[in-house]
Amino acid sequence: MCRWLAYSGRPVRLEEFLVKRDRSLIDQSLHSRLGATTTNGDGFGVGWYDDQQLPRLYRSTHPAWNDQNLRELAAGISSPLFFAHIRAATGTAVQETNTHPFRHGRWLWMHNGVVREFSQIRRELLLAVDESLFRSIEGTTDSEAMFYLALSFGLEDDPIAAVERMVGLVEEVGHAHGVEQPMQMTIATTDGRTIWAFRYSSEGDSRSLFFSTRVDTLKALYPDAVELEGLSDETRVVVSEPLGDLPGVWNEVPESHVGIVRPGAGELLPFTPRRAAWP
Amino acid sequence: MCRWLAYSGRPVRLEEFLVKRDRSLIDQSLHSRLGATTTNGDGFGVGWYDDQQLPRLYRSTHPAWNDQNLRELAAGISSPLFFAHIRAATGTAVQETNTHPFRHGRWLWMHNGVVREFSQIRRELLLAVDESLFRSIEGTTDSEAMFYLALSFGLEDDPIAAVERMVGLVEEVGHAHGVEQPMQMTIATTDGRTIWAFRYSSEGDSRSLFFSTRVDTLKALYPDAVELEGLSDETRVVVSEPLGDLPGVWNEVPESHVGIVRPGAGELLPFTPRRAAWP
Amino acid sequence: MCRWLAYSGRPVRLEEFLVKRDRSLIDQSLHSRLGATTTNGDGFGVGWYDDQQLPRLYRSTHPAWNDQNLRELAAGISSPLFFAHIRAATGTAVQETNTHPFRHGRWLWMHNGVVREFSQIRRELLLAVDESLFRSIEGTTDSEAMFYLALSFGLEDDPIAAVERMVGLVEEVGHAHGVEQPMQMTIATTDGRTIWAFRYSSEGDSRSLFFSTRVDTLKALYPDAVELEGLSDETRVVVSEPLGDLPGVWNEVPESHVGIVRPGAGELLPFTPRRAAWP
Amino acid sequence: MCRWLAYSGRPVRLEEFLVKRDRSLIDQSLHSRLGATTTNGDGFGVGWYDDQQLPRLYRSTHPAWNDQNLRELAAGISSPLFFAHIRAATGTAVQETNTHPFRHGRWLWMHNGVVREFSQIRRELLLAVDESLFRSIEGTTDSEAMFYLALSFGLEDDPIAAVERMVGLVEEVGHAHGVEQPMQMTIATTDGRTIWAFRYSSEGDSRSLFFSTRVDTLKALYPDAVELEGLSDETRVVVSEPLGDLPGVWNEVPESHVGIVRPGAGELLPFTPRRAAWP
Repeated sequence: MCRWLAYSGRPVRLEEFLVKRDRSLIDQSLHSRLGATTTNGDGFGVGWYDDQQLPRLYRSTHPAWNDQNLRELAAGISSPLFFAHIRAATGTAVQETNTHPFRHGRWLWMHNGVVREFSQIRRELLLAVDESLFRSIEGTTDSEAMFYLALSFGLEDDPIAAVERMVGLVEEVGHAHGVEQPMQMTIATTDGRTIWAFRYSSEGDSRSLFFSTRVDTLKALYPDAVELEGLSDETRVVVSEPLGDLPGVWNEVPESHVGIVRPGAGELLPFTPRRAAWP
Repeated sequence: MCRWLAYSGRPVRLEEFLVKRDRSLIDQSLHSRLGATTTNGDGFGVGWYDDQQLPRLYRSTHPAWNDQNLRELAAGISSPLFFAHIRAATGTAVQETNTHPFRHGRWLWMHNGVVREFSQIRRELLLAVDESLFRSIEGTTDSEAMFYLALSFGLEDDPIAAVERMVGLVEEVGHAHGVEQPMQMTIATTDGRTIWAFRYSSEGDSRSLFFSTRVDTLKALYPDAVELEGLSDETRVVVSEPLGDLPGVWNEVPESHVGIVRPGAGELLPFTPRRAAWP
Repeated sequence: MCRWLAYSGRPVRLEEFLVKRDRSLIDQSLHSRLGATTTNGDGFGVGWYDDQQLPRLYRSTHPAWNDQNLRELAAGISSPLFFAHIRAATGTAVQETNTHPFRHGRWLWMHNGVVREFSQIRRELLLAVDESLFRSIEGTTDSEAMFYLALSFGLEDDPIAAVERMVGLVEEVGHAHGVEQPMQMTIATTDGRTIWAFRYSSEGDSRSLFFSTRVDTLKALYPDAVELEGLSDETRVVVSEPLGDLPGVWNEVPESHVGIVRPGAGELLPFTPRRAAWP
Repeated sequence: MCRWLAYSGRPVRLEEFLVKRDRSLIDQSLHSRLGATTTNGDGFGVGWYDDQQLPRLYRSTHPAWNDQNLRELAAGISSPLFFAHIRAATGTAVQETNTHPFRHGRWLWMHNGVVREFSQIRRELLLAVDESLFRSIEGTTDSEAMFYLALSFGLEDDPIAAVERMVGLVEEVGHAHGVEQPMQMTIATTDGRTIWAFRYSSEGDSRSLFFSTRVDTLKALYPDAVELEGLSDETRVVVSEPLGDLPGVWNEVPESHVGIVRPGAGELLPFTPRRAAWP
């Protein structure tokens, strides 16, 4: 439905991952191999942290492959942490406010997947969004609603618990409306320092998600690989699908797990939805 | 904030009123004389009834004055009843789903004005929208929320009562949030046969609204006026501001009134908000 | 590179061929089967003759599959003769002025294919455009340049001869610049009454092109086919690729031929480029 | 017709001049005071030199005032030298390739004004563009044609002489076609280190152009002015119209002059069109 990429490491130009590689994200917008659709042409977005550590967005309704501005910005902007997303819409309008990443304060959020029968349960989900947050919702997607639910459940304090409660709520409300498998998702969220990458679906058959091997390990394996040039040892990339064919570079995030990426460290934890304690 | 035009009469090409006159709606997009803003460049929309009497929409985020497709369509499409709207945004995103006219079933709706402090009271207003209608809301404007509230209050059965209840609710909720004068509006709505045009504001100082004099009267006054050529006697036009300078052509809709336009007839009635009987 | 469709017959709503069929043109924008690319997402255009027999255009840089206005117009507009085109750009900018069909006076023109090494020979080709026509060129594509060359060579008087001279010139100039096979094309052009559909390439291996069998013959073969409902006997459709699987419906235009479609008649003639008698 | 701004100095965020001031360039897009039109809503562009000293572009067909991406980029990007331009079209299409600044190699170019009767003389002007440069022309404006003529006449080696020859040619060709006053222009061009800002018109009544006073002088005059905070002494800004009301800040470039801005220096020279020595 969509494809996304999250980068953490020494500052690099965005084009390194969005444009230049054989299976760059722009290439995936026309020719995804593992996606639910091969074409992801319903807009795209990039979110990056600037030299003040503030998140900035460039989002467009054009297909990524023919947007000249994206190539300019990807060539001109470097960042130590950025998100990029290409969209294949699943029923909501193609407009910038429905384009990932979404932002709230210092946080970014992007999603691949779907809340099934979302139009039926949207009203009930929106009711569970905190009143003070409700007015910040700008679009109409399931993905943004999930973000504001997670924020309502404490994303900024305990991201994993908040996403677990969000998924718990979506499943609960979905089941109450007769939806058997309400949630299909991979999600990335960040506060600008740490990235959390979730893989989960109600049916236990989630969209693909991969994280890159440590760059020092890779450089030992492939001392001459041009793909590794300019990448610092602490680099980590999380992607919907691998950016190339080199064996050993990409590792699948297991079903119902969350990966945590921060400079100099990484962790993989099990993920279990929890029922929200809401009235 | 915006400018709009509603036409009812013998089928005419849309360009007659959108493009060709000195103060056509496209001209007003750059040079409004009576509007709250002189530039209305945040998108536009046209809604017309086709030869199956079904409403069709063309909406765009471009300024009306530089959209080539609008000129093409206005030249190629004739209709006996159409709405056109040019937008000056008041805080919500410039995207097609926020562009007037809005449509539900056979009905069209467009608005000039503002619900003051809308972001504060939006959640409460949306809660009053009927559950079955809620999922049809596509954008984030006050104008569309007003439409769905009116639909929830029976617009399709008794348009005036429904709009009176909608305004009553907005004022009630606004006052409860400390907004002194919550509503400023001119509204046009239609089922494809009759047009209702409302002028109202909480402060009793509403945006301008005019309706055209009967064409047979005008032709008697101005037997040679080119502006009247091709217009049938039953023609009525309702506009935010006059399309020209000819004395006697344009009549102001009085404060707190609703004008009703249907083939061969017209009526002007007082308009009074009513408190909705809602729990 | 692109896909196109030309319709002639009793007035039908555009959506009959653009939206409703299994392999409608909108479907082909995401999933072309015979095209050089499977995705044709770099804009689209529709040209139709209105009730004054004048050609009107709707062109957009959005992908056809996600453009709401296209669906509205296709539902609301009927025409006895229309062109539709979905684009996969081959090097020139994605902008409305590069989107087919192109129009000059009463004429429409659209193209699938490419002038090879066009950027090298563009200047020389443009020099051969008649001075009075030069100023009407709005975009930068090979396709539009071909149109204005054909107009310069008398398209409005003798369309086949003009296109033969245009192709002759492109091949001559291409060869002079060392391009072995300068031309790859299927082209449709019309004056609003007759459609000429050309299939030709320098290498004798042209993009696919099909025309529909007479509807009376088809109705005899398939008395119950829903695909034929509402189609008059004089209907002819010319397409880059078949709109469905029914055997006997679609006939390939042979290599180096031009098909002529007019109400109540049709003809298939050989096509041979000719050297232009230009200084 | 348009408004533009050129900045040279210590790196600043683009928003300092595009967004934050009372009469920022975005403000001028809605409310120009000295422009030929008050609204400049037909697209905009920004060109800046990145940390590799390479020029990058962001150009859009939206009005500057409602483009969210512009605000994001202006907040997230700092540069020691940038151009910004808001467009009011004078007859050519609103599309990114017609939007300033234009770029060739390391050079940027932007223009306010018009080549009168451009559509009549465009073909002849384009013929004077060097063949090797011709293929880089992407749009259809007079402004871009002027840029490629200047490049053909040696802009990269001697900018002032090249622009003098370009203007000489335009006037010569215009006069030959009966255009009395062919040229109306202010132009800025840069190689990333030096800015040249031209003010000239055939009629000796050119569009307005101003440059800022030395910042150390201003700081002596206005020790507490917030407008000067964060500006380095070598800052120079050249603008179509002043960004504020502070007396002494803005100096008019005289008629038929060119201003040269480079770090630590500035010069004002007379400008005289010269006849090109072309066959």
